[in-house]
Amino acid sequence: MVSEQRTADANFESLLRIFTVPEGPDSTLTKIEEELSRNLNKFLREHIVAEEKSLKDIEKDFSDAHIPEQPEFVSDHTQHLLDTLVSHSVHTASPSFIGHMTSALPYFLMPLSKIMIALNQNLVKIETSKAFTPLERQVLGMLHRLIYNRDDSFYSSWMHSAEHSLGAFCSGGTIANITALWVARNKALKAQGSFKGVEKEGLFKAMKHYGYEGLAVLVSERGHYSLKKAVDVLGIGQEGLVSVKTADNNRICPKDLQDKIAELKQQNIKPFAVIGVAGTTETGNIDPLREIAKICQDEGCHFHIDAAWGGATLMSNNHRHLLDGIELADSVTIDAHKQLYIPMGAGMVLFKDPDAMKSIEHHAQYILRKGSKDLGSHTLEGSRSGMAMLVYASMHIISRAGYELLIDQSIAKARYFADLIKAQPDFELVSEPELCLLTYRYLPEHFKQALEKADAKQKLALNELLNELTKFVQKTQRETGKSFVSRTQLNPKCWEQLNTIVFRVVLANPLTTHDILHSVLDEQRKIVQQAPNLMRQIEQMAQSILSA
Amino acid sequence: MVSEQRTADANFESLLRIFTVPEGPDSTLTKIEEELSRNLNKFLREHIVAEEKSLKDIEKDFSDAHIPEQPEFVSDHTQHLLDTLVSHSVHTASPSFIGHMTSALPYFLMPLSKIMIALNQNLVKIETSKAFTPLERQVLGMLHRLIYNRDDSFYSSWMHSAEHSLGAFCSGGTIANITALWVARNKALKAQGSFKGVEKEGLFKAMKHYGYEGLAVLVSERGHYSLKKAVDVLGIGQEGLVSVKTADNNRICPKDLQDKIAELKQQNIKPFAVIGVAGTTETGNIDPLREIAKICQDEGCHFHIDAAWGGATLMSNNHRHLLDGIELADSVTIDAHKQLYIPMGAGMVLFKDPDAMKSIEHHAQYILRKGSKDLGSHTLEGSRSGMAMLVYASMHIISRAGYELLIDQSIAKARYFADLIKAQPDFELVSEPELCLLTYRYLPEHFKQALEKADAKQKLALNELLNELTKFVQKTQRETGKSFVSRTQLNPKCWEQLNTIVFRVVLANPLTTHDILHSVLDEQRKIVQQAPNLMRQIEQMAQSILSA
Repeated sequence: MVSEQRTADANFESLLRIFTVPEGPDSTLTKIEEELSRNLNKFLREHIVAEEKSLKDIEKDFSDAHIPEQPEFVSDHTQHLLDTLVSHSVHTASPSFIGHMTSALPYFLMPLSKIMIALNQNLVKIETSKAFTPLERQVLGMLHRLIYNRDDSFYSSWMHSAEHSLGAFCSGGTIANITALWVARNKALKAQGSFKGVEKEGLFKAMKHYGYEGLAVLVSERGHYSLKKAVDVLGIGQEGLVSVKTADNNRICPKDLQDKIAELKQQNIKPFAVIGVAGTTETGNIDPLREIAKICQDEGCHFHIDAAWGGATLMSNNHRHLLDGIELADSVTIDAHKQLYIPMGAGMVLFKDPDAMKSIEHHAQYILRKGSKDLGSHTLEGSRSGMAMLVYASMHIISRAGYELLIDQSIAKARYFADLIKAQPDFELVSEPELCLLTYRYLPEHFKQALEKADAKQKLALNELLNELTKFVQKTQRETGKSFVSRTQLNPKCWEQLNTIVFRVVLANPLTTHDILHSVLDEQRKIVQQAPNLMRQIEQMAQSILSA
Repeated sequence: MVSEQRTADANFESLLRIFTVPEGPDSTLTKIEEELSRNLNKFLREHIVAEEKSLKDIEKDFSDAHIPEQPEFVSDHTQHLLDTLVSHSVHTASPSFIGHMTSALPYFLMPLSKIMIALNQNLVKIETSKAFTPLERQVLGMLHRLIYNRDDSFYSSWMHSAEHSLGAFCSGGTIANITALWVARNKALKAQGSFKGVEKEGLFKAMKHYGYEGLAVLVSERGHYSLKKAVDVLGIGQEGLVSVKTADNNRICPKDLQDKIAELKQQNIKPFAVIGVAGTTETGNIDPLREIAKICQDEGCHFHIDAAWGGATLMSNNHRHLLDGIELADSVTIDAHKQLYIPMGAGMVLFKDPDAMKSIEHHAQYILRKGSKDLGSHTLEGSRSGMAMLVYASMHIISRAGYELLIDQSIAKARYFADLIKAQPDFELVSEPELCLLTYRYLPEHFKQALEKADAKQKLALNELLNELTKFVQKTQRETGKSFVSRTQLNPKCWEQLNTIVFRVVLANPLTTHDILHSVLDEQRKIVQQAPNLMRQIEQMAQSILSA
């Protein structure tokens, strides 16, 4: 027994080394880190393999549910991570990967992230975050001002007020949207007379107290899929997420919004929130925010704007007019890990009224005492890391003017690509870019003519084949690993709402050049040739329609 | 105009450097990073100032809501961060800061975190994560097996199944608990006949369909404060979170649980979930899980275990019996950023049944298509970072046996500290450690005798003064910056449930030595001398009680 104890002590002493002795300068991990610090793009290019390994094969490397019994050397495991994980991850920073909202990151964020992680602060309460709490409050203040542009006295009154909160820092846009709707729901079903409020008595009693038959949140048919989760979680139900028609250019139709609200009220369903989209995920379009604000004001609805993607456009004095009316919203979601170029995990929701978050405030004895400035009393999440530091640093190092350049260049590039596509005889631009997003597909002139001339049944069949082709091209391009566009399904007006699969392109990466855009189209043309059977079918059908 | 465009292009070219040119080897940021890599503890000790600056003063540095118009050099801003932020953050890794659940981190996690951040994967869908998706599924499989210990064929069937999910990786325990209760609520109010389920029709219609008057979740009075948020968000209401009495040692009283369930049912309130706590936040105690499981089975309740803190104990073959019965739970929350020594932001919820998460499954066209293995279809959050990589690496480098040593040492150290406190004539151990948490207070022998002898009114008054003293000592010790214990309020049986403020100690940091524990007590004794007036009052009251 004594010798067993001695062995355990010795093992523990050697284990302590991982907490006290850093990796040596010649260790694999240090070398990799240095390589990455010297030239990130080279590191990623060299370590991420271009050609796709099948998911089934990758899974074989990650199939053991046993936690290892034997420790592994850091160097050995690092090599293992390079071979199995890094090599088969996605080169999200590649300038020719233009299908996602992830982009290249500024270099200085890598060492700063390491400092943030080493500090390991917990923003839930000031005792584990100290200066990080005022810093996060300032970042929320900056974003609040970017949206609402209140005067200095507003921010000196509220930014650091223990009883107030200008918003919440979250892991992402989904939690931000849920937080906004949570606040809106609790405000709509607040305490009244003997009723203690939905937060205390729950939704069932709240509905009985207020005499409603249902609750509704309205958003355009282009609203983000996460809103379905939000209404499910909040007990409203997915049927309570009412889809409003879009007019041209995927923007919500205000007339339909008014009609839908009237219909709901007639059914005694309370439309407690309307969500405007500022940068739809699929096409990047922005709802007419000012018009929605007016309707919300008339109807007494909470007006939330999901600007997870487009909110960063406010940084550009040249383009912020696109979000005209955003300052009228009760709450706004912005993701810093999208067009503010912050690593994954930095969402925010801002509230116009510093009192708004009172409806979800919570306290506890050993934590979040009343009167403390703990951020945790106004967040859905509990323990949280110091991500706000990275937003703070980027705001200072890049500055508003720098972000403006990034935004302006992205939008100009999307405009360039749109013109380029329109100048091609064999591609069709499906949605024009308003921000830096656009959609298109491969559609040679005579296919287009055939599609126009076809009767309803032929149209459906021909379009289905074209969808197959788009899917094939997108998948093959991804698997070849040189470049990447994503794909989605739209229902364009010009094609009578046919389900149309399109390539989706996001031009947020500042390193993407015009040459890359040209070569993406060239590559797609070549890939088309790899589907001779499908192309033959399309050709035959097109010919038969055109010669009829 | 042409020259303006030229200036903008030139500015953009120089801005691009932040994406393409790393900080030079002599830059402030590189030097700091190297300093941190060579000796993290030295870096933190030297850069975090010991004496506390008042929050009001810190806030002055973070009071400007304007986003800067002018960019700042990386080096200048780094120096600014060191001076204003790092210097006034909390040294969570310090071996003498034993008040929090944050601890020192293993060295290898710092460079690995940097690689993770540089890769910037988004786990919401496989197109932006590839190998990270199977890796995360494996990590969930490992934790599932740690809890439920199913055979290999179980994991090879379900771990990588597109239609199934063994759990969800989250930003933290709060989201994990909300996810578990969301699943449980949707299961309890599932589709039936013409009713399409709570996820579709919402809570109000669900209640009418099932004919319930209310919903309830039961947890001991020591349950985590985040559960109040959970029932609020989910529309159940805080009154639906029913508090069950604890017996000795802060463990739930099964008899009271049964009585409460019976009472609820009599009121036609559906008790759809019971939460067992495996490691209470305040005292680290573990509910009798097997007994709760039996009750849940009899009553048809979802049995969730909040093992955010204590779950890591399963790594120790010597102590996992403390969580006996955990394998009977329908779902379990574990935070890897607590006793698995991962940086902030790594929560998990595991479900016994691979089908359980179907009740919250969601899909979307451009993302999370049906049949894909995208993790986003089973998570409350959307975009998520590759934190699972750090858990994976730690499991391999530390191994189960290594974690066992860490857990065992922590528990042994808490036992040692408890015995040390009990051996002091002037301290009182308030809660015995079951894991590595304990609570105590400064209570010299004759104060204790006075408190025992006092009548009800005197007892209240004397105890109130003692509470003041505990608060003073805790606050002063924190502000002095040498060591830190947290504080909370308990209602100990031995003191007839009086509100008792106590020091709370968490001994998770493997670098905390016995010497440090001794000096924490010494320092507290000295601090007591800094409150002569308060001490005089206590002395006088004690004397008058004892001499009566």
